[in-house]
Amino acid sequence: MKLGFIGLGRMGQEVARRLIEHELVVYNRTHGKTMELAKIGAHVASSIAEACEGREIVITLLSDDVALSDVVLSARGILDSLPKGAIHLAMGTHGVHAIRSIASAHGKAGQFLVAAPVLGRPDVAAAGQVGIIAAGPANAVDRCQALFQKIGRRVFSAGPVPEGAAVVKLANSFVLGCAIEAMGEAFSLVRKHEVATSVLYDVMTDGMFSSPAYKVYGRIIVDQDYDRIGFTTELGLKDINLALAAADTSRVPLPSANVVRDRLLGAIAHGDGERDWAIMAHEQARSTGLE
Amino acid sequence: MKLGFIGLGRMGQEVARRLIEHELVVYNRTHGKTMELAKIGAHVASSIAEACEGREIVITLLSDDVALSDVVLSARGILDSLPKGAIHLAMGTHGVHAIRSIASAHGKAGQFLVAAPVLGRPDVAAAGQVGIIAAGPANAVDRCQALFQKIGRRVFSAGPVPEGAAVVKLANSFVLGCAIEAMGEAFSLVRKHEVATSVLYDVMTDGMFSSPAYKVYGRIIVDQDYDRIGFTTELGLKDINLALAAADTSRVPLPSANVVRDRLLGAIAHGDGERDWAIMAHEQARSTGLE
Amino acid sequence: MKLGFIGLGRMGQEVARRLIEHELVVYNRTHGKTMELAKIGAHVASSIAEACEGREIVITLLSDDVALSDVVLSARGILDSLPKGAIHLAMGTHGVHAIRSIASAHGKAGQFLVAAPVLGRPDVAAAGQVGIIAAGPANAVDRCQALFQKIGRRVFSAGPVPEGAAVVKLANSFVLGCAIEAMGEAFSLVRKHEVATSVLYDVMTDGMFSSPAYKVYGRIIVDQDYDRIGFTTELGLKDINLALAAADTSRVPLPSANVVRDRLLGAIAHGDGERDWAIMAHEQARSTGLE
Amino acid sequence: MKLGFIGLGRMGQEVARRLIEHELVVYNRTHGKTMELAKIGAHVASSIAEACEGREIVITLLSDDVALSDVVLSARGILDSLPKGAIHLAMGTHGVHAIRSIASAHGKAGQFLVAAPVLGRPDVAAAGQVGIIAAGPANAVDRCQALFQKIGRRVFSAGPVPEGAAVVKLANSFVLGCAIEAMGEAFSLVRKHEVATSVLYDVMTDGMFSSPAYKVYGRIIVDQDYDRIGFTTELGLKDINLALAAADTSRVPLPSANVVRDRLLGAIAHGDGERDWAIMAHEQARSTGLE
Repeated sequence: MKLGFIGLGRMGQEVARRLIEHELVVYNRTHGKTMELAKIGAHVASSIAEACEGREIVITLLSDDVALSDVVLSARGILDSLPKGAIHLAMGTHGVHAIRSIASAHGKAGQFLVAAPVLGRPDVAAAGQVGIIAAGPANAVDRCQALFQKIGRRVFSAGPVPEGAAVVKLANSFVLGCAIEAMGEAFSLVRKHEVATSVLYDVMTDGMFSSPAYKVYGRIIVDQDYDRIGFTTELGLKDINLALAAADTSRVPLPSANVVRDRLLGAIAHGDGERDWAIMAHEQARSTGLE
Repeated sequence: MKLGFIGLGRMGQEVARRLIEHELVVYNRTHGKTMELAKIGAHVASSIAEACEGREIVITLLSDDVALSDVVLSARGILDSLPKGAIHLAMGTHGVHAIRSIASAHGKAGQFLVAAPVLGRPDVAAAGQVGIIAAGPANAVDRCQALFQKIGRRVFSAGPVPEGAAVVKLANSFVLGCAIEAMGEAFSLVRKHEVATSVLYDVMTDGMFSSPAYKVYGRIIVDQDYDRIGFTTELGLKDINLALAAADTSRVPLPSANVVRDRLLGAIAHGDGERDWAIMAHEQARSTGLE
Repeated sequence: MKLGFIGLGRMGQEVARRLIEHELVVYNRTHGKTMELAKIGAHVASSIAEACEGREIVITLLSDDVALSDVVLSARGILDSLPKGAIHLAMGTHGVHAIRSIASAHGKAGQFLVAAPVLGRPDVAAAGQVGIIAAGPANAVDRCQALFQKIGRRVFSAGPVPEGAAVVKLANSFVLGCAIEAMGEAFSLVRKHEVATSVLYDVMTDGMFSSPAYKVYGRIIVDQDYDRIGFTTELGLKDINLALAAADTSRVPLPSANVVRDRLLGAIAHGDGERDWAIMAHEQARSTGLE
Repeated sequence: MKLGFIGLGRMGQEVARRLIEHELVVYNRTHGKTMELAKIGAHVASSIAEACEGREIVITLLSDDVALSDVVLSARGILDSLPKGAIHLAMGTHGVHAIRSIASAHGKAGQFLVAAPVLGRPDVAAAGQVGIIAAGPANAVDRCQALFQKIGRRVFSAGPVPEGAAVVKLANSFVLGCAIEAMGEAFSLVRKHEVATSVLYDVMTDGMFSSPAYKVYGRIIVDQDYDRIGFTTELGLKDINLALAAADTSRVPLPSANVVRDRLLGAIAHGDGERDWAIMAHEQARSTGLE
């Protein structure tokens, strides 16, 4: 299969590497990041257009909606360069609005958009173990399955409309934000009663909450180890704002998302935007005079 | 060991049964519930006093703080009847205020209070697999360990102050309420975007949320099976209100608890107080015009 | 008319003084506060019973529900001492539960309860200009009208059930708390955008918000003059908690009350419990890194 | 003074009419709306450019940020057509982002932006009694003062940065949304206690809340007269979202704004988007089973 790949951040590097056996043409705005892939055989394109022309599928793994829109819609971007009938496989975490408008543009150009955001961090991607939430026209999604097998451990089908995958990804992140917030509140409550936070951590993770969300983030909070960064507070806010924007479009009150958003804003206001978003627990503690 | 046992609701029955080999004297306000235990050899007391006199430990497993206060403080109650140096082991889920005032009363009477609320449902109790959060004077807690071994799979030590166990139990329940609420919001968001709730369920429980809180309650929500009752909405509200009362005492804002409380109030206002508290998801759906 | 009067705090002093021409018997737990009234002709009772016996109406103006319950229900309290057919006129700000249970007790004793909380501060009371929210059996309320004329500028009839007056008073306080909170948030927003808070103050109070709630509390916030105390943060929390308790009983989600409650808890946690409750604005500013 | 005027909605018509004595050139996207002004002597431009060329000041009074950006930035828009040194006086309610980016563009083009959103409805504008919140370079604001005198009763100076006026306008609207929400909650609380809403209305508007926000909107709520439309729910949501966007930029948690936003979303989800935004009270009542 002839593949293009645009966006070689930490996740992009790992995903692209697993697809090297395809005739892979890679492009990144900053050239340096393409070198590792060139070494193992990828062809390095000097423009977006070159990464798209003649390709059956072009994958993007970009950090935000602005980057996605630029890459797709600007002159000699994906829309102008990808052949008719080819697929744009968007694997970044994007908002409903961005996916919707890009899907529409691709449709008018006779191309297909498959949204397939991934679940997992770079090390998980390196092992080919990410989860993939895929949505788009059934035929187009099918044509991506061989790639998905290389990249991830499981594909979750979110229906025929690309934005469906976006909203599921955002909903999952939002539920995670709520779990961290709830822990932050609960830990501050036990601290105020002179009980060690590790007691509650043990109770939670031994029982109803014996899963990574609580084990990983609970551990960071108990250890107050907010510089062991998995996901920054700024990125957390970005995702929560995308979830709230999706909720705004579809008229869904999300009171828990509001709580998470306010907590993240408070943390950033206090200078903690680049620390792990488990800092929410610290910000909650601050609000009750503990820090 | 000479044991008394007061409060033979569904949990009480199962816990008491596991302690039958001790010289067990049981008491329940309504006599009927004592029969099963009498059959297997428990002595049935006709008064609280009789269940306390000469006992080394009297266990209570009562449904709320009012019942606890009555049993302890009324004339010929536990306080009047338990020998000096004996232990009152309170295994119900109680509020910080109730535990604090009863601990103080026992202290003045030369008795000990150990608070040891349990985690798990009656079937888990029957199997001797509940979790136990224990707090109280170290010596008194030690004297209960043999009982804990019979009753549960693990003891979590929450320190020397009985109310510490209460606050950990309430915090755990509160985190659970937040998880259900977050799921309810997230499910309504994906529904509004025409994605099946089962997709989000699969993503969550396959990944960050592969634990009972999400599997059990998420399943109820996806199936809209709110009459499969594990824990009622009214009981959920009771626990959240106790958590908020503990937070009030210790000056801790708990914005997520507020969201849960309001959701539970809304569900009860709509007539769903006796359904499973996963009904929170249904109430959220109602708020956004889905039901 | 033969009047008893129990509770000579700052408000009580002023209200009692306006009723001096009636055959006034006054009682206060701490004796000192009765002296001013004795000087102008009141008879000082040495017990609650003495302030009730032979009286047609006994007024209480007490600071909280615990004080009210004690005064009414303890041995030789109002319930034991007031003649049948007489009225207990409760003018403090009380919770729905307290008023309901006391109304019931009076009813069984052949007495009447009229709840009539007042609106206004001591200086307003001194001028006979408070507002009075009155509820109770119509006949009993009528019998109090002559007193109301002496005490206040206007009577708001809240129906035949005493707790109706309590809930209206609490609702009014709650709306005030929300107004202060909203101002606090709005002021912090303009401050972060480098605009003087006085600009927003002028816009608000010149237009939609040209009323005391915004003029008085907005001024305190603009001047950051939180030690000019009209109503303390602790008292504000007490009222909001009573409003939330009323909402709990009647199954009413009050999301704005939750926001106010959390803000007050945060302020108290930071040591500001005895400052004016406009400190909510300061606490909001703190949450966004401004203080 | 040579004036251009773009945007002849209901407010625009009234404001333009008061400026007719200046050499007024008016433009509206839909031609029909210019006729009334043509009758009283305004010159009707056939393009944005024609409304700008040779003008000292061009006023816009547009309904949203998209319209503003289009009018300013599109080819032969204000930016291209207004003379150097001239002023764009933007009198609509706009977001901080839109004002900021347009101010920057005008600056680069040697033009000035003064943001001057107005307070009041069309009938108030017709009487020349609106409030005006003005911000921009001092010199440019001064040059607009003669116009402000014609249009409004009072000018509030919000400093030298145009977005300062935007944020004050949004903050004022947000405080209004909070007042309506608080009333809605309070009214549902008294209704659940069988007290007429008019009692609380009287208490509020006689005392702390004797101002239009409570009198106008409280009256609509008491009368359940949500089709007497002053400001629609959809417009309310637009303003609250702009306030939240301003808060996002400046890292300010606004918990009360979240409550208002969720309420508005719920109302719209239930089909009430085009009714008066006092419908928030109805939506609150619905949430507690009253409707």
